Amino acid sequence: MNIPDKVINRLTLYHFILDNFREDEQYISSAKIAQLLNIDDSQVRKDLKYLDYPGKCRVGYEAKKLKHTIEDCLGFKQKRDAFIVGAGNLGSALAKYDSFKDYGLNILAMFDNDPKKIGTVINGKEVLSFTKVGNFVTKMGVDIAILTVPKECAVSAANYLAGAGIKYIWNFTPCILDVPKDVKVWNENLIGSFLQFTNSNEV
Amino acid sequence: MNIPDKVINRLTLYHFILDNFREDEQYISSAKIAQLLNIDDSQVRKDLKYLDYPGKCRVGYEAKKLKHTIEDCLGFKQKRDAFIVGAGNLGSALAKYDSFKDYGLNILAMFDNDPKKIGTVINGKEVLSFTKVGNFVTKMGVDIAILTVPKECAVSAANYLAGAGIKYIWNFTPCILDVPKDVKVWNENLIGSFLQFTNSNEV
Repeated sequence: MNIPDKVINRLTLYHFILDNFREDEQYISSAKIAQLLNIDDSQVRKDLKYLDYPGKCRVGYEAKKLKHTIEDCLGFKQKRDAFIVGAGNLGSALAKYDSFKDYGLNILAMFDNDPKKIGTVINGKEVLSFTKVGNFVTKMGVDIAILTVPKECAVSAANYLAGAGIKYIWNFTPCILDVPKDVKVWNENLIGSFLQFTNSNEV
Repeated sequence: MNIPDKVINRLTLYHFILDNFREDEQYISSAKIAQLLNIDDSQVRKDLKYLDYPGKCRVGYEAKKLKHTIEDCLGFKQKRDAFIVGAGNLGSALAKYDSFKDYGLNILAMFDNDPKKIGTVINGKEVLSFTKVGNFVTKMGVDIAILTVPKECAVSAANYLAGAGIKYIWNFTPCILDVPKDVKVWNENLIGSFLQFTNSNEV
């Protein structure tokens, strides 16, 4: 199903709420979710219509069932293997971010071209030589790369990855990548996120 | 001016392009920007209308002038002071992320409650005791906190920050914070971002 990006974003936030919901409470209302996120109740109900959730009773949604429905719908259980390219500060932090696994993102290894980093292991992920990334893409069938190299290397690294068979790049660098059309780029854009925050009406 | 979030996000991406634009090229066309981002030309032109950019000539936009106009419009030059709360992996990586400074985000210090971390210095930012955050909020007039504590502490840390006078929380934890209405929360939601990427039509 084609779910708009904004809805996917909010469904993930609803999942965070359900994930931390008290075990002894069986039901959650759209009003409760809305209040926690400071959004409109009707927005929550509209978003939840994208799910294959079978009805709701008068007291609200069954918390556990709703949680599982979101998981199925967004594919948390479909494991997606990925490499981190760039074993610097941000790359290492992401390698240590264990929550990714709960949402289906499985980081298999890291790549860098610094001889001092190659061979080290970060949170169980070995840092391999960037020159070998092509071999591993083929051997392990990985097509997602999380790009956390320094700004200066971003464009060339992305092109190298495209040549090596990577099809999806989750780009954490403040750089626009110029890759062939068959490679999809998702710009994380932390800076844009901060500027949205500080420029938003509410701030 | 009230610029929609999505437009702010794209304007930041246009700025990345202009920032890396070759010095010897004076003009950039909306088509060139569109091509690099794999979006529609008309979208770029529509977004740039939000700016106070004085006209464009037949060969396109003056790259330097457009860059400065985006900077003025999104407030890159307005320095915004912030604290990082949680000196773990992600907090430390953000403290070391020097690109923030170019976009107006000035991280003054970090806070943690781990005695082993307190007193250390990460990229010139001292790690201070979390119990003292209230004093520093008042003394330094900081009202933005970047929250990177472990998931389990997120809700209580956010409440403590709200009590200490923090007004804006940039939340990197996979947790929904339940803070008073006068505190604004921006959920970074890296997981939602990844799911948008993998669920989007194009992937």
